[in-house]
Amino acid sequence: MPSDTPSSTALTSSALANAIRALAMDAVQKANSGHPGAPMGMAEMAQALWTRHLKHNPAAPHWADRDRFVLSNGHASMLIYALLHLTGYDLPMDQLKAFRQLHSQTPGHPEVDVTPGVETTTGPLGQGVTNAVGMALAEKLLAAEFNRDGHTIVDHHTYVFLGDGCMMEGISHEACALAGAWKLNKLIALYDDNGISIDGKVAPWFVDNTAQRFQAYGWNVVGPVDGHDVDAVDAAIAQAKLSADKPTLIVCKTAIGHGSPNRAGTAKAHGEPLGAEEIGLTRAALGWSAEPFTVPAEVKAGWDATAAGAAAQAAWDERFAAYETAFPELAAEFVRRMAGELPADFAEIAVDAVGDAHDKAETVASRKASQIALGHFTARLPELLGGSADLTGSNLTNTPSTPAFRVDEVGAVVKTEDGKIGRHINYGVREFGMAAIMNGVALHGGYIPYGGTFLTFSDYSRNAIRMAALMKKRVIHVFTHDSIGLGEDGPTHQSVEHAASLRLIPGLDVWRPADTTETAVAWTIALANKHRPSALLLSRQNLPYLPKTDADVITRGAYILSEPSEVGLKKAAKAVIIATGSEVQLALRAQEELAKKKIPVRVVSMPSTTVFDRQDLDYKKAVLPPKLPRIAVEAGVTDFWWKYGCAAVVGLDRFGESAPAGELFKLFGFTAENIALTVRKVLAK
Amino acid sequence: MPSDTPSSTALTSSALANAIRALAMDAVQKANSGHPGAPMGMAEMAQALWTRHLKHNPAAPHWADRDRFVLSNGHASMLIYALLHLTGYDLPMDQLKAFRQLHSQTPGHPEVDVTPGVETTTGPLGQGVTNAVGMALAEKLLAAEFNRDGHTIVDHHTYVFLGDGCMMEGISHEACALAGAWKLNKLIALYDDNGISIDGKVAPWFVDNTAQRFQAYGWNVVGPVDGHDVDAVDAAIAQAKLSADKPTLIVCKTAIGHGSPNRAGTAKAHGEPLGAEEIGLTRAALGWSAEPFTVPAEVKAGWDATAAGAAAQAAWDERFAAYETAFPELAAEFVRRMAGELPADFAEIAVDAVGDAHDKAETVASRKASQIALGHFTARLPELLGGSADLTGSNLTNTPSTPAFRVDEVGAVVKTEDGKIGRHINYGVREFGMAAIMNGVALHGGYIPYGGTFLTFSDYSRNAIRMAALMKKRVIHVFTHDSIGLGEDGPTHQSVEHAASLRLIPGLDVWRPADTTETAVAWTIALANKHRPSALLLSRQNLPYLPKTDADVITRGAYILSEPSEVGLKKAAKAVIIATGSEVQLALRAQEELAKKKIPVRVVSMPSTTVFDRQDLDYKKAVLPPKLPRIAVEAGVTDFWWKYGCAAVVGLDRFGESAPAGELFKLFGFTAENIALTVRKVLAK
Repeated sequence: MPSDTPSSTALTSSALANAIRALAMDAVQKANSGHPGAPMGMAEMAQALWTRHLKHNPAAPHWADRDRFVLSNGHASMLIYALLHLTGYDLPMDQLKAFRQLHSQTPGHPEVDVTPGVETTTGPLGQGVTNAVGMALAEKLLAAEFNRDGHTIVDHHTYVFLGDGCMMEGISHEACALAGAWKLNKLIALYDDNGISIDGKVAPWFVDNTAQRFQAYGWNVVGPVDGHDVDAVDAAIAQAKLSADKPTLIVCKTAIGHGSPNRAGTAKAHGEPLGAEEIGLTRAALGWSAEPFTVPAEVKAGWDATAAGAAAQAAWDERFAAYETAFPELAAEFVRRMAGELPADFAEIAVDAVGDAHDKAETVASRKASQIALGHFTARLPELLGGSADLTGSNLTNTPSTPAFRVDEVGAVVKTEDGKIGRHINYGVREFGMAAIMNGVALHGGYIPYGGTFLTFSDYSRNAIRMAALMKKRVIHVFTHDSIGLGEDGPTHQSVEHAASLRLIPGLDVWRPADTTETAVAWTIALANKHRPSALLLSRQNLPYLPKTDADVITRGAYILSEPSEVGLKKAAKAVIIATGSEVQLALRAQEELAKKKIPVRVVSMPSTTVFDRQDLDYKKAVLPPKLPRIAVEAGVTDFWWKYGCAAVVGLDRFGESAPAGELFKLFGFTAENIALTVRKVLAK
Repeated sequence: MPSDTPSSTALTSSALANAIRALAMDAVQKANSGHPGAPMGMAEMAQALWTRHLKHNPAAPHWADRDRFVLSNGHASMLIYALLHLTGYDLPMDQLKAFRQLHSQTPGHPEVDVTPGVETTTGPLGQGVTNAVGMALAEKLLAAEFNRDGHTIVDHHTYVFLGDGCMMEGISHEACALAGAWKLNKLIALYDDNGISIDGKVAPWFVDNTAQRFQAYGWNVVGPVDGHDVDAVDAAIAQAKLSADKPTLIVCKTAIGHGSPNRAGTAKAHGEPLGAEEIGLTRAALGWSAEPFTVPAEVKAGWDATAAGAAAQAAWDERFAAYETAFPELAAEFVRRMAGELPADFAEIAVDAVGDAHDKAETVASRKASQIALGHFTARLPELLGGSADLTGSNLTNTPSTPAFRVDEVGAVVKTEDGKIGRHINYGVREFGMAAIMNGVALHGGYIPYGGTFLTFSDYSRNAIRMAALMKKRVIHVFTHDSIGLGEDGPTHQSVEHAASLRLIPGLDVWRPADTTETAVAWTIALANKHRPSALLLSRQNLPYLPKTDADVITRGAYILSEPSEVGLKKAAKAVIIATGSEVQLALRAQEELAKKKIPVRVVSMPSTTVFDRQDLDYKKAVLPPKLPRIAVEAGVTDFWWKYGCAAVVGLDRFGESAPAGELFKLFGFTAENIALTVRKVLAK
């Protein structure tokens, strides 16, 4: 922004930041709810980044090599809406006027795929910066995988704004420690260090020396700088971009609500409108005379990034064209991968995986079945990026095709002898971090992330699983040791409520397969669901292969596994036993027990209730005829199962015990005998 | 352990630690599962602490002023079982032989109230150290509240062992940052820094400079010391005890599986038996010739803490007798509080709280109703220790009786002018930390902890809520903003699956009250349930008072709120509408709508499904007559409600939207009209 005189420069410069302040004040006031303080406090930080560094093209929000920008303190949503509007994204002023109104593109917290230019949904604190770590990881891996000498097609930064709240959340520890270990030098975090959280001045509850903490993670720390000095923030970002092997934290000292004469620097600025009077005083203090929701043309021009964005993308297009000429197959692969499309032969791969399971008919734990299926998929889907929260040998998330991801001393991705990158992440004991990093990887594009832990510790990562469901992103959770079948580790590690409670998250597919074939199908559907996360609940203990004629039907979530004819009865079934996972074998044995007494029952295997619930009514009725009583069997809480109109549920409404698994199944009534008895009681009613 | 020659001393000294190693190896081998490496690695750390510092009396595991010992890396359970056995607790060798077997006192992970001397249930990593922070907080507060000049009756340390896994978990950040802010100098953490986690040598995924990180939290860091040098650890603990205003981290460099010639220092030592051959080699290397599960008498004598423990307690008993003489009322109060007994007039207090709500019949948000009820309870129950994860003004967890907890520059608890301690904790934005700290407070005794956040962020703390339920501890969660009624903050903040999913946790009481009276009753029951955690789900928005004749019946979890006669119909109900919380008012309006069409329905308010489920069958049938169709109404997922045999559920099986609450209720069908229509459809079937 060249200008005639220094004072005029200063004026113009503050006018840019003040445009954000004005829009934030106006929108929050009009909505009569929202958070003006944070956007006002971060206005100059945003100006420095967005007008001097951020590589983006407002006309093409999905351009592959754009810099990613994450607003981890998502309550500051008016900051990003203002930025997107001002720089030229398709977000008209009318949308800003509709802030926080139904079906607007300006919801209370930023939502990906609702607003062009919003890279991730934020609000639950600490997860945005963790998504950013995932994005920077994806960039590093893609660069290592696709760039070639003289052809740099992946080369962008991930920027994240975060506040005190994100810094206090535990997940920030998990994510930032990993960013340090992985030497994610293209990750640049700007910390809005305003010393205020909702309860007030943070001193009594937040005394961390954050700079020192991040140095302990192996970060490059810059500052503190004056967060209201655009040049200072600009210089800090420039310095951060020089970091060759460390992520950078820029500590920006700011005042929340900066510009407001009476609310700046107070918690009062955080979460409510300033009110007409204070807005008036603030406008006067800022010298901002434009009407509400009006931005002077010269200020809009100062923000406009459309020309620079078009030029930046044109330069990249040229580079990519040269790359395409030199490496046509790689280029096509890059395009496919960034589009999130599966390989053209995915159906064949899936048939191979499922067919292999069917042919081998192995008795293995379903976690092992998962690893076998992954063997097929990882060999032929280079986009699969696995990992485990320090339970690799238990979750069995690795395969011969997924060497461990490692970086060398200078931060370069270590490659195998044949030039492959590591595709299995040791996340350490960081379940929540893993889940939100996987969300970031999925948001970035280029990889399909999956990661493992014990099912019970899905509790730790639960909100990130929810966020994947809300964002409709393909993230696959491998949750092993899925019940009392875990045995001796005891009730702290035994899931009882987890299968049911995961099924309650809207948009999440939950699978609890009973054998190798069901597990292979679960993986197939999870991979094919481009806009849906999945959780695979897998056994620690061996499960017998269940003979079946048709594997395709598994894709419907539930299916008739065995009719009375299979156990020598000619009569039609008088009841249906529904079972999942490790209990399906018991249901089959109960069916046999009952056959001895001439009681014909059908066994339905229901590996995925969520998938079954999406089937058409005719199919549902064919599997669960309305007139037949149903008995559900699952080694978990019973409450969930009544939705299928069950007459009885064999389940477990208490915590488990530490003992060998076999004893526990007997103790808690998960036996063929008890299931058969339950069916007989139902039929006797 | 004086001895004739230095070499003999060394032998005796290592014999003590080796007794732990031998017992750990033997028990894991016999169970054919478990974790030998960590107990073997921490044996000298344990020896230093337990033979030279720990103040405890094996004959009285519940002595109020004992030091607390927490094994945060709970998989090392054989360490604490060995210690308890060796020092003289009522844990005979037969129990060690029954390690990890059904109904033994030696489950796979330590469980409080199962094994004498186990202070908390650990296993889910990071939570033990967080419990310890809660215990140290309780100690500090109790000391400030009860000690008097010349009468120090509360004066003990909290010791915690933790490993790399705990250090990686995000919750360790939340808890340890708070311990620093609160200057918990009596908290001493011994870090088993062995550089190994399950996936192997941690270097690629755990590069934290942990000492620097803890210094950043304001901790005193000692070491690194050689964790296999008893004298070095002893000296470090002695140094830590001198800390006047900071918690201490002692970094102990150890080798996992120390003593095992082939497995020490490897991940292989972590989670499986060493095997007979390696055990033989280890015994030889250690010079340990005793038979399995046999401890030489002189070694047992070296560990025996019964005499020292009895003497320590006798000294305290004497001090307490003097205190009792000087301050009889305070002493009685201390005894009551540590026993977890409510005041003798609790019933009256509850009647006042509920009666006040009933009399005033106010239309307020249920979060406000909660604050009003808390006004009564906190005024008369000094043991109530409130708090919020940085949402005090939203959760309304504070009252005039609960000034904010603060410490001064030297770490002393700041008191009010009339000598009261602060009883409302600003936990900062640390939901999981808050929940597990509250568990620690409840485990310590002396206070009943409660704490608030938004319901959706119960996800962050979910496993700690589960742990409270597993441990049967009275911890009360105040979850406000409980539905789409939260409005403009949008789907990231709007709970839809949370009420249902919390109800699935065995042993947790969940309340979603509909008005001030129900809220006051919910608080009453939550406080009275000494062995059960509770979650109160409260509205952001105002809820009308619901006229009712009898408040006592609310204690049964569900009750008939309105019969057809209330809306002018003489006929008996043809259907029952079940509703909770903010939707009860809609059910009543639907009842009126239906009455206009001469359709008589009953409205049942069901503030607590978990409490209702514990009622006798007759009461259940009286409220929900078997022959009447039921229609449930709750602004959340529907799956849960089918357990009550509902014919229809008016619910929300998708995420919400950012918009004013009133619009959302209409959009998603939470209107009297839609409920009435649903009832009519059910009756038309």
